[in-house]
Amino acid sequence: MISKVKNAMSTLVGGMMPHGHHQHHGSGNVHHQNCHQDGLPPRFPYGRPEFLDLTPELLQYSTEHASRPVLTLRRDSRLPWRTGYAETINAGKSMLNEDQASCELLYVKKLSEKKQRNSTLLEDNAGLGQVGSIPPTYWGVFDGHAGSGCAIMASKLLHRLIRDRLGDIAHLLENPSTAPPICLAKNGSPYQAEGKKGANAIQDPEEPDAITDPSIRFHTEKAVSLESLIVGIIENSFKQMDELIEKEKVSYAISGGCCALAAIHLMGKLYVANAGDSRAIIIRKKEVIPMSNEFTPESERQRLQYLGFLRPELLGNEFTHLEFPRRIQHKELGKKMLYRDHTMNGWAYKTIVEDDLKFPLIYGEGKKARVMATIGVTRGLGDHDLKVYNSNIYIKPFLSCCPEVMVYDLSKYQHGPNDVLVMGTDGLWDVTTDREVADAVSSFLSCCEPADPVRYTLAAQELLMRSRGVLKERGWRLPNERLGSGDDITCFVIPLSGPAGPET
Amino acid sequence: MISKVKNAMSTLVGGMMPHGHHQHHGSGNVHHQNCHQDGLPPRFPYGRPEFLDLTPELLQYSTEHASRPVLTLRRDSRLPWRTGYAETINAGKSMLNEDQASCELLYVKKLSEKKQRNSTLLEDNAGLGQVGSIPPTYWGVFDGHAGSGCAIMASKLLHRLIRDRLGDIAHLLENPSTAPPICLAKNGSPYQAEGKKGANAIQDPEEPDAITDPSIRFHTEKAVSLESLIVGIIENSFKQMDELIEKEKVSYAISGGCCALAAIHLMGKLYVANAGDSRAIIIRKKEVIPMSNEFTPESERQRLQYLGFLRPELLGNEFTHLEFPRRIQHKELGKKMLYRDHTMNGWAYKTIVEDDLKFPLIYGEGKKARVMATIGVTRGLGDHDLKVYNSNIYIKPFLSCCPEVMVYDLSKYQHGPNDVLVMGTDGLWDVTTDREVADAVSSFLSCCEPADPVRYTLAAQELLMRSRGVLKERGWRLPNERLGSGDDITCFVIPLSGPAGPET
Repeated sequence: MISKVKNAMSTLVGGMMPHGHHQHHGSGNVHHQNCHQDGLPPRFPYGRPEFLDLTPELLQYSTEHASRPVLTLRRDSRLPWRTGYAETINAGKSMLNEDQASCELLYVKKLSEKKQRNSTLLEDNAGLGQVGSIPPTYWGVFDGHAGSGCAIMASKLLHRLIRDRLGDIAHLLENPSTAPPICLAKNGSPYQAEGKKGANAIQDPEEPDAITDPSIRFHTEKAVSLESLIVGIIENSFKQMDELIEKEKVSYAISGGCCALAAIHLMGKLYVANAGDSRAIIIRKKEVIPMSNEFTPESERQRLQYLGFLRPELLGNEFTHLEFPRRIQHKELGKKMLYRDHTMNGWAYKTIVEDDLKFPLIYGEGKKARVMATIGVTRGLGDHDLKVYNSNIYIKPFLSCCPEVMVYDLSKYQHGPNDVLVMGTDGLWDVTTDREVADAVSSFLSCCEPADPVRYTLAAQELLMRSRGVLKERGWRLPNERLGSGDDITCFVIPLSGPAGPET
Repeated sequence: MISKVKNAMSTLVGGMMPHGHHQHHGSGNVHHQNCHQDGLPPRFPYGRPEFLDLTPELLQYSTEHASRPVLTLRRDSRLPWRTGYAETINAGKSMLNEDQASCELLYVKKLSEKKQRNSTLLEDNAGLGQVGSIPPTYWGVFDGHAGSGCAIMASKLLHRLIRDRLGDIAHLLENPSTAPPICLAKNGSPYQAEGKKGANAIQDPEEPDAITDPSIRFHTEKAVSLESLIVGIIENSFKQMDELIEKEKVSYAISGGCCALAAIHLMGKLYVANAGDSRAIIIRKKEVIPMSNEFTPESERQRLQYLGFLRPELLGNEFTHLEFPRRIQHKELGKKMLYRDHTMNGWAYKTIVEDDLKFPLIYGEGKKARVMATIGVTRGLGDHDLKVYNSNIYIKPFLSCCPEVMVYDLSKYQHGPNDVLVMGTDGLWDVTTDREVADAVSSFLSCCEPADPVRYTLAAQELLMRSRGVLKERGWRLPNERLGSGDDITCFVIPLSGPAGPET
């Protein structure tokens, strides 16, 4: 994310140079204006996604802002689903690439297998049982700002939180045709206390009347689908991830914040969860199907203004929840100015009073729109200690860590080898439209052998090059001479024909 | 609106019988559970829309729940644009028809013509100047609940508020190609203090530097369109209408609340503003184009939960902002129940604690969903003294009077005589889908002479009949034997070929 946090200096003092295996090295001394973490060890060392399997030399090479090398999977590496991947560093706004990515199979453990839950929470996947024959697949892209710590931590842990929560409902995943029970017994046993008369209904011996007594069932029940339970798991995993970052900041240096975009394939459906301004689209027979919305000061203006209206103390006597089309000068008091509040989409005139001279909570347009003159995204993870420059006003209350989850049912359509899900950080989309991405992917893939194992990585590389451009005298330029993106760029291209490919 | 307010008795004691001209008669003794207005005169007498021009006998006839007569325009009456209209009363849930409607030309006065603004505010249209050659046209449908007072008042006054606010920007409406100025001088003069270098820029003699000094113009300005100024006027007129109801309740009996749906034609664009669960659709070449969204406990769940979360005191220790799929019993404490909060679209399990035994803020599904077990719509006008039954908890803080405004540019399409805007209260839409309405209107109109002056009223009558059905032994039934709507039904059918019709 390029300069998404204004006034928050994110410079590296000293080098990030890895002297051996990169896992032994720190994240560098990332100084964040609000960061009081000097002396704490990093939660995870800086590095690039593990699946890139970079040597120290390549890791070093990846940080060259002058050449901005495009990193892709090694030809002998494979990601699940033959997923394609490419990334490049920014043009110099931060020493390290603040984007991160992960791609994992989620080996979901059943509840019964992890009685000592706390000890196994967040452990890695080695040697665990799994639900069903096809483990869920997970892809995540994380676009950090004001440091890389948060994006790295989320890329390492978010999928484990999701995996562990899926484990809590493993018994439901194994019987997807059964509606989830509304209520569970204290011991967590699944089919109970509901009054359900199904084969799995087990009566609670402590409450013999709970099931059979009709008088306690006078209220109707809302049917809840397994799909919405999975959506709830993803939503709450994002929240848990955010809480974990806050908690571990006591012991570790975890710099900045990050946008998070994750896709999970589970039982024939793709769940795409977005918190921030990264983007996912499906391209199916050259048609674009948006799978995410961006959350920015402009798209979330009314939510933020509403909070500022209800909780004016969060504005710290420095900001007004009203929006104005420009700054107001003191001598304009008593004149009339266009404004809008949290209830309005249109604009109206109001007489300017003293309070309107405060800085607007939301200010600026497009990529320059900011919350409290500081941050250009309104959802994501981290940022717990982010404050307005030179003030004691926290911005976190206005940020949301809750993703919007969209669901795509893969089984409803036939997918050919050129039908893909593209996930990218904003660097990809800032200079290339959805339509251009779809056209580029479609025409590129139609020239590749369907069986070519690296075709999706080559497509990701193609997309990335189109947004980065080439270095000319006047900076990074696209073929049409427009400016290329100077931001970190990260891109997954995921074939919708699934793990086995279109041949099966 | 049928039983949209639960527990709020809305019975008529005594008759509403008009004994002469209906304007001389009261709204009946509408008893509202929260109404402390006994003895106050009604703000407006009960009646049907003026354009129906009912005799006292017909007004009496219109209230016959047994036969539910369909009222339409008299054959010798004309509404602007040849607008079609039909209405019928409910099947017995309230003695009077709580729907109202209005259709008006808005004679917008210029600012200069109403220096004594306060004295002319809300006056009727007689003898005023107007902006442009075609006066704006206005249509409104109002679906009352817990009494008819609010719907009547809104049907009489909302358009006047809009008209007066349009007068404030009359100079802008006359120069639609000029962008609205960001700032106005104290005297309200239009083109000033902006730094605009256009022909209309008038320098403020008190502030010679404001325009020319570049140092005060370092911030960029957001461009605001005339269209968004008109949207703002409509939004703020709804708010003003709501405030007026509250204010006048001190002196008048103004019962209940109402949903409000208004359409305004202004300079080639249709502005459709909706607060509640009425609905407007455009039918163009048989295609359905939604022009409103419904605001209900389900569609606005997260907004309401967010308010309950931020302001728990509004829940009065009786309600929880969390949603559960059913009521929780005391003996289920400690078990796990599905829930969702204001951040979630999915569901998850939580351990039941004491606080979860409170009644959910949002409860029920579909037409039975309620806020605080009381009201089934979340936007509208009035309801200022609506409380939860047998409690001191006000519901108004959770209701919004702000409409969502959608804009349709008539000039972008060619409209034939069968292309229409349909506006109807929920009675129309509860039993008939958008598609069915579109098919019915299209096939009905294609059988009418395009020049027939009453074709749109006949189409409205046709739609209304389809939703009301006919009285059989087992109630009001549709041709397919499904239940017809027992609610009040009100319906406008407005030709998009405009005031002059398709011939010109």
